[in-house]
Amino acid sequence: MEKFYDVAVIGGGIIGSAIAYYLAKEKISIAVFDSGQISGKTTSAAAGMLGAHSECDDLEVFYPFARRSQQSYSILEQELKELTGIDIRRTPGGIYKLAFNETEKQELGPLCGLTTVEWQDSRYIRQTESAISNDIIGAAYIEDDVHVLPQAVSRGFSQGAQMYGAAVHEYTHVYDIQKNGIGYILKTQAGEFAVQQVIIASGVWSNSFFQQLGLENRIVPVKGECLSVWKDGISLQHTLFHEHCYIVPRNDGTLVIGATMVENDWSEQPTIGGIEQMISKAKTMLPSVGGMKVASFWAGLRPQTFDGRPFIGFHPEDNGILFAAGHFRNGILLAPATGQMMRDFVLQREVDEKWVEAFKIDRKNYCLV
Amino acid sequence: MEKFYDVAVIGGGIIGSAIAYYLAKEKISIAVFDSGQISGKTTSAAAGMLGAHSECDDLEVFYPFARRSQQSYSILEQELKELTGIDIRRTPGGIYKLAFNETEKQELGPLCGLTTVEWQDSRYIRQTESAISNDIIGAAYIEDDVHVLPQAVSRGFSQGAQMYGAAVHEYTHVYDIQKNGIGYILKTQAGEFAVQQVIIASGVWSNSFFQQLGLENRIVPVKGECLSVWKDGISLQHTLFHEHCYIVPRNDGTLVIGATMVENDWSEQPTIGGIEQMISKAKTMLPSVGGMKVASFWAGLRPQTFDGRPFIGFHPEDNGILFAAGHFRNGILLAPATGQMMRDFVLQREVDEKWVEAFKIDRKNYCLV
Amino acid sequence: MEKFYDVAVIGGGIIGSAIAYYLAKEKISIAVFDSGQISGKTTSAAAGMLGAHSECDDLEVFYPFARRSQQSYSILEQELKELTGIDIRRTPGGIYKLAFNETEKQELGPLCGLTTVEWQDSRYIRQTESAISNDIIGAAYIEDDVHVLPQAVSRGFSQGAQMYGAAVHEYTHVYDIQKNGIGYILKTQAGEFAVQQVIIASGVWSNSFFQQLGLENRIVPVKGECLSVWKDGISLQHTLFHEHCYIVPRNDGTLVIGATMVENDWSEQPTIGGIEQMISKAKTMLPSVGGMKVASFWAGLRPQTFDGRPFIGFHPEDNGILFAAGHFRNGILLAPATGQMMRDFVLQREVDEKWVEAFKIDRKNYCLV
Amino acid sequence: MEKFYDVAVIGGGIIGSAIAYYLAKEKISIAVFDSGQISGKTTSAAAGMLGAHSECDDLEVFYPFARRSQQSYSILEQELKELTGIDIRRTPGGIYKLAFNETEKQELGPLCGLTTVEWQDSRYIRQTESAISNDIIGAAYIEDDVHVLPQAVSRGFSQGAQMYGAAVHEYTHVYDIQKNGIGYILKTQAGEFAVQQVIIASGVWSNSFFQQLGLENRIVPVKGECLSVWKDGISLQHTLFHEHCYIVPRNDGTLVIGATMVENDWSEQPTIGGIEQMISKAKTMLPSVGGMKVASFWAGLRPQTFDGRPFIGFHPEDNGILFAAGHFRNGILLAPATGQMMRDFVLQREVDEKWVEAFKIDRKNYCLV
Repeated sequence: MEKFYDVAVIGGGIIGSAIAYYLAKEKISIAVFDSGQISGKTTSAAAGMLGAHSECDDLEVFYPFARRSQQSYSILEQELKELTGIDIRRTPGGIYKLAFNETEKQELGPLCGLTTVEWQDSRYIRQTESAISNDIIGAAYIEDDVHVLPQAVSRGFSQGAQMYGAAVHEYTHVYDIQKNGIGYILKTQAGEFAVQQVIIASGVWSNSFFQQLGLENRIVPVKGECLSVWKDGISLQHTLFHEHCYIVPRNDGTLVIGATMVENDWSEQPTIGGIEQMISKAKTMLPSVGGMKVASFWAGLRPQTFDGRPFIGFHPEDNGILFAAGHFRNGILLAPATGQMMRDFVLQREVDEKWVEAFKIDRKNYCLV
Repeated sequence: MEKFYDVAVIGGGIIGSAIAYYLAKEKISIAVFDSGQISGKTTSAAAGMLGAHSECDDLEVFYPFARRSQQSYSILEQELKELTGIDIRRTPGGIYKLAFNETEKQELGPLCGLTTVEWQDSRYIRQTESAISNDIIGAAYIEDDVHVLPQAVSRGFSQGAQMYGAAVHEYTHVYDIQKNGIGYILKTQAGEFAVQQVIIASGVWSNSFFQQLGLENRIVPVKGECLSVWKDGISLQHTLFHEHCYIVPRNDGTLVIGATMVENDWSEQPTIGGIEQMISKAKTMLPSVGGMKVASFWAGLRPQTFDGRPFIGFHPEDNGILFAAGHFRNGILLAPATGQMMRDFVLQREVDEKWVEAFKIDRKNYCLV
Repeated sequence: MEKFYDVAVIGGGIIGSAIAYYLAKEKISIAVFDSGQISGKTTSAAAGMLGAHSECDDLEVFYPFARRSQQSYSILEQELKELTGIDIRRTPGGIYKLAFNETEKQELGPLCGLTTVEWQDSRYIRQTESAISNDIIGAAYIEDDVHVLPQAVSRGFSQGAQMYGAAVHEYTHVYDIQKNGIGYILKTQAGEFAVQQVIIASGVWSNSFFQQLGLENRIVPVKGECLSVWKDGISLQHTLFHEHCYIVPRNDGTLVIGATMVENDWSEQPTIGGIEQMISKAKTMLPSVGGMKVASFWAGLRPQTFDGRPFIGFHPEDNGILFAAGHFRNGILLAPATGQMMRDFVLQREVDEKWVEAFKIDRKNYCLV
Repeated sequence: MEKFYDVAVIGGGIIGSAIAYYLAKEKISIAVFDSGQISGKTTSAAAGMLGAHSECDDLEVFYPFARRSQQSYSILEQELKELTGIDIRRTPGGIYKLAFNETEKQELGPLCGLTTVEWQDSRYIRQTESAISNDIIGAAYIEDDVHVLPQAVSRGFSQGAQMYGAAVHEYTHVYDIQKNGIGYILKTQAGEFAVQQVIIASGVWSNSFFQQLGLENRIVPVKGECLSVWKDGISLQHTLFHEHCYIVPRNDGTLVIGATMVENDWSEQPTIGGIEQMISKAKTMLPSVGGMKVASFWAGLRPQTFDGRPFIGFHPEDNGILFAAGHFRNGILLAPATGQMMRDFVLQREVDEKWVEAFKIDRKNYCLV
């Protein structure tokens, strides 16, 4: 017995849930399929920094897209709270991108050229954040790069989508997508579903669909290992960031420390070598962290593309198939803009040509990050 | 080697932490002693309802005190967020105190007489909360009885107190209090401490100090067993309440269900009989809850006094010893007002005589709840 | 870059691990692929009863196969301990299959006809097991139906297989199997692998391969929800069993209580309705269990076939593909015999024709259990 | 309402439970009081090595006592399994006490003089344990220093004691012991108990009783931080030991790594600095451990005395009070001998004078370890 939907989203992480939310809001009949629980994998492992500036090495294309997504979060926070009762835990404070020497300071130069970023020297910073290492010479301060609780955002999107009529099928692995006239049949453990369009938003697990659907580009996992500690006895109001490592002060009294970068490792558990490395890095930024108590540890798989940008767009030869995957370190940040862009694709609204080009599925070595 | 403080608080739950916060803010030299972790016991087990109305059977004395405490929470929320970065997760929505028949409706009569409470009939309620049982005939709606996350409040108080200069000694059991001139020596595993005044705020474990310090009144444990589930597929914006059982929709996507009332049980773990009872009660209020997935379960010990009111005040024969314990089901609600009242006692400010009388340590069967 | 193995096993639960063990021992080059962790799903959720008698409704075919598997466990226990250091926690005591009335007693008649089973009346049983309900009239006692720790067995098989040279690829989902000359190419997230033979042992998730490989038969999930409690204050040496519900006294001081039967539910988490049902059933067998403390709860998906027997054998049209799946409630019990049978298939040794017929993949309604 | 017992044991860890077991077996009316759960603290944090040789720096007094206790374990294993169904998980393999250079080898000289200890050189060791670091030059091999699961032993003792008639009061903090005629009154949260003799076996928390009862000697905590990992891909049959750090291969497929030595820290949680240190030490013994997955982490408080030996004996001025505390790193090893020694004290049987002297409560700097 088949069920019918206009659109199927494969993957119920933050990207898939955002897409479902923005489409359901437009009264599109939509269903999300996840092989496990909603937001159970990469999303739940993320720190939730909205690092439009701090994670950005490309001010021309990536930055405006990321910045727009970041700005969507203030409206979104209200919307989801009213609609679903879920608080996405948007926490102010912003990020200090630390410099320990002149070279690092110079590398922060272009970033500090933005109006939203400000260089602060060590003495000034340590007036408010006295726990930071004495060894820094200063930092780029980015007030707008706040953080949210990723699972809360993703659950908010998902419950919101359901309130607008979306269906969510958890524990329902889609193992095949078959062309069927003008639509598709999704084959799952729980039976078959007929849909008009399919959106693949399975993060690093989208890879198998890339291959099944004849695409050349690939998504590779970059495992990130994290831990959290109870912030005892010190004050820390800002996220600290240095060499891809961060310390995020959550508003529940913990600090989240992450994350390693282990390429091509599909295992979703941290090794003790990875944990050791994170502790060591965190101590260079915040020496007193070594005396804090462990709260938990975990790992997640970032979906990396060849040029560091996500794949967002249509299958080059099949307009019924779309992709939104490969967001690497920036899935939480980019979820709202990705969801809106996919909505516009599906509804055949206009989408900024620059972004269509930058994120299209079959692009060639556009720009190596 | 002794250390000196003006005031020692024994117990780092929400009551002890609130006291430390309000006193440290006044620049009193204060230390908190907890035999385990801050907020690790009764506080962490609470649902966090600020039930000034829903938990109240005494509109004359208890209600105004509770109401004042409830109102303190709006200022507190801002204060703690700014000072410590901790969000206490105050969640609007309020409580429905359900009536399943005319008798129950009549019992809600006096409550509905308050300007802050409103009777709503079944049809009206089910327009917004369609998942509630068809069997209710209506409910008293109390918009102001919102809820907070108890551990967040308590950690907020504790970190705030530390920022104002308080010391917090975790894992430091105080096993004896000895008179020493005009002050006291606290004997702990970790050595001795000299203080001017001692405040006992150890919840149900205050009982041993009552006995050691020659007091007749007692605090008995009433164990409460709880569980939480993932709220799937339904909307629920209000806390539901019936016969001491509640379903609280947290803003993280879970429902908290509690709590049994097991007198004189000191064990801090739930039995499966207790869990079974809670599931059964929850289903009468919210039938679809049976199909939701378990998130976790736990238990806590409410400190009960003979008349249901807390003990807040001086030892009848020793002005150097104060008590703030026995808050029963209302520790989270009453923490701010209790902290402020203790601050005023210590600083010898004026305290409302009605409350002094109602909560004094050596009161006799004042009024049996 | 491809790797080559003689045999690939898809699925690293107890069935897949047993197959790998028996084949690696014969020096076959073999690799196990699991989309998550070894024994992370159905295996880890099982109670581990070796219920050759207690789970058996078919004394002709199923019983001899099950009994042989049960007997393999005594050798296996030693083998795995010596080879891997892992103790499979085989715990004596056996099972009481309880009768609460004459009808139930009569239903146990055929079982009690076996030389390994003995009827005991209530008075006799309660001499040693005084905690059992007064309401029973007696029980079939099966001394040989002992229990093991399923994850320990499965980890033992898997580590043992590795010591004999097998490769184990965790977190490696196989999304396609393609014919390639006389062998197959397995497509996985982590690249491609070339193999001569493929064995599908993915429990309920084998279903998608049944469909992909053109088979008509299906495997459906029957979710089982369980909990465990701390056995306090009572003695219980035997497993209790009644109406598909059991109480297993583990040798770590806990009792395992299970399990519901929820058809066609793919979710791997327990609902509170299921938990409530199990508590209620357990109390009918062991009244004092209601006062015991919860240790944990979980759920797993049993793979059910149309006639209650597993599928063990070759793909009807392709000798390079084999299946070992659909063991329903008996995966732990049947793992050794299944592993040995698959080994014999692969090595082209003789296999008892009766079992070949009973378990073959394309059988028709052979016998409805 | 008072209850009466002949003997009260304060502390339900492995020492208190062993004492209760050996006394209950002799039909003494006995009750155990624990302020939390049985074996919930130091016992549950121990690795369970029976290191009669490996932990021994004193071959004259400590060794024979420890050795006798170690030997008791083989009988005990059977006794507890038959009586309670609990398997204490005694795991053979023994310990390698590693030497990385000639100095360390020489320090192992006296130990290797024992008939139960054997020096093995690197090449020989790495034939069976190829995962051990190439940097060792050899090791003292002690076959008899096997390990058990501490909580299983302690639960076994406790359930066994209950079967022999002992009472166990969990969550019952004893806050005062008062002389009462020829006996004592124990004051607890849960009421008063009258007893003839009191045995204090509260590990590091015995300290407060030392002080209350006028004794000069002290017990100080030495926190040990541990973690466990999943042993993947390697074989390890022996415990590795070097500079107070060990790697214990449990028979459930994990490796336990421990433990730091943090003096005077009463906190029962690990810091990330401690975890980092343990990972680093473990890697020097077993390089591949860095790639293994974290299973869990924890901490416990070892009770240390001034000379490293336990206090076992009568209060010097009060024959009604006995102590058995301060077992430092050796509580699991010494539990049976301690339990037997206390039994003999209570029953006024003969006790070896050498041990009476070595472990007596009011000894002076007998010998500094």
